[in-house]
Amino acid sequence: MTTLTVEECWALLQQESVGRLGYRLVDELHVVPVNYVVRDDVVLVATGEGNKLLASELHAEAALEIDDLRGEEAWSVLVRGRLQHVEEGPAEAFADVATVSWLPTFKYDVIQLVPAAVTGRRFEVHRPR
Amino acid sequence: MTTLTVEECWALLQQESVGRLGYRLVDELHVVPVNYVVRDDVVLVATGEGNKLLASELHAEAALEIDDLRGEEAWSVLVRGRLQHVEEGPAEAFADVATVSWLPTFKYDVIQLVPAAVTGRRFEVHRPR
Repeated sequence: MTTLTVEECWALLQQESVGRLGYRLVDELHVVPVNYVVRDDVVLVATGEGNKLLASELHAEAALEIDDLRGEEAWSVLVRGRLQHVEEGPAEAFADVATVSWLPTFKYDVIQLVPAAVTGRRFEVHRPR
Repeated sequence: MTTLTVEECWALLQQESVGRLGYRLVDELHVVPVNYVVRDDVVLVATGEGNKLLASELHAEAALEIDDLRGEEAWSVLVRGRLQHVEEGPAEAFADVATVSWLPTFKYDVIQLVPAAVTGRRFEVHRPR
């Protein structure tokens, strides 16, 4: 198992667009698939009314995990930090955030995960037959 | 977007073997890929020394997320609960838990996620070109 450098982690974060966002809403831990965009070392996610938006208003603890487990060599990257509701800036500045979303729900809001720690690792996988 | 029944969620949990486990270790939120096995409505994960085992000793808040985002209709299931270190029972009772693991690290311990809530949803995805 190899530890990835922070630079390698950000390169993978830039390359991918789908991850799993964990966040703590009051005393409930949630993990959900999300589309995301990285800009200026911050992770941006489009969202509508609901738990993620509420969690961002509460500056909830959160972590975005991305991985690729398909090959013989797998990797995973974790960005830990807190959520914030992005309320500033013209809407068009975030147009690309909304358009990467796969879900057909209304997403007028953008939340950001401000990283406190970025870690990653690469490892060989041995699948059972 | 359709809400899955608890029965549908468990059927998907039985069918799959890879998920993302979120857990809170003291004040750090982690999300990591894991191999898992479902037995008696409990999620079992083999692990070695490290954060997951420590989190299980602390009965940490945790959530296992599984999904399939590849088709035009995607789904995700979330099991929320707390971790426990499984210290009882003969080792052979958990042999299948250890053998599903893809990672070549030593895994002498089994932790379980005892579900407090199981939820899932199915949704159409609209990928950007």
